[in-house]
Amino acid sequence: MSASPFAAPAGDASQEEGTVLRPRFGPDGLVTAVAVDDADGTVLMVAHMNAASLARTIETGEAWYWSRSRGALWRKGETSGQLQEVVEMRVDCDQDAVLLRVRVSGDGGCCHTGRRSCFYRVVPIKQGAVPALSLASATSR
Amino acid sequence: MSASPFAAPAGDASQEEGTVLRPRFGPDGLVTAVAVDDADGTVLMVAHMNAASLARTIETGEAWYWSRSRGALWRKGETSGQLQEVVEMRVDCDQDAVLLRVRVSGDGGCCHTGRRSCFYRVVPIKQGAVPALSLASATSR
Repeated sequence: MSASPFAAPAGDASQEEGTVLRPRFGPDGLVTAVAVDDADGTVLMVAHMNAASLARTIETGEAWYWSRSRGALWRKGETSGQLQEVVEMRVDCDQDAVLLRVRVSGDGGCCHTGRRSCFYRVVPIKQGAVPALSLASATSR
Repeated sequence: MSASPFAAPAGDASQEEGTVLRPRFGPDGLVTAVAVDDADGTVLMVAHMNAASLARTIETGEAWYWSRSRGALWRKGETSGQLQEVVEMRVDCDQDAVLLRVRVSGDGGCCHTGRRSCFYRVVPIKQGAVPALSLASATSR
């Protein structure tokens, strides 16, 4: 991986209160990225970004992730047409996660299974023994 | 760490299409957890869960995370009063992330800095050189 174009995380309060982007990449070189639909706030997906994908997202205004399974930069939607235009990016307090509000091209979907959102199954809460949990399909929102 | 009470990830399509919860914990033993406010969908925080915290969240209906900095189970809000009642939990396609819709106790906030959401800084997009990025405060939504 090439050198990060970003400032290193700060060891003091400026990490949380400062106005310099200092992404805190994990041991795997990644930050977490959450993409929500700008139209209605639906959480579409959770993915990851390395320094190169974060930089390219900021530069281009299109969501670029890091595919852990393929070990490669991933321009979201390049093959599916479901490109994500970044309307707004935020970073969290300790700067190890980013939140993207996106406008999705193509059919407006996100998940490779064909659903709009990757979060299409509900985990029952307080329903008994953990290993027996079942996942119910639910409409996206 | 004690043995996971969950089924192992499946090597076939049932991981994505099945109705059995098979969390795909990473090499660090964690899945990503995103908490949104059930009232208005605001993304409050991104955190992590190991098998024990995921099991306890499902059993109790209260959000329990794994604190990577403290290396300990973390009952969200135990000291701050900002407990999170889980209204709904979802899991994503490959089951390495969960999405919680929560009702927050106490003052309704989430971030240890005093803000409601951890995502209180905006990263400018398409504004030029990456290292010089500044973060602007913004109202939460």
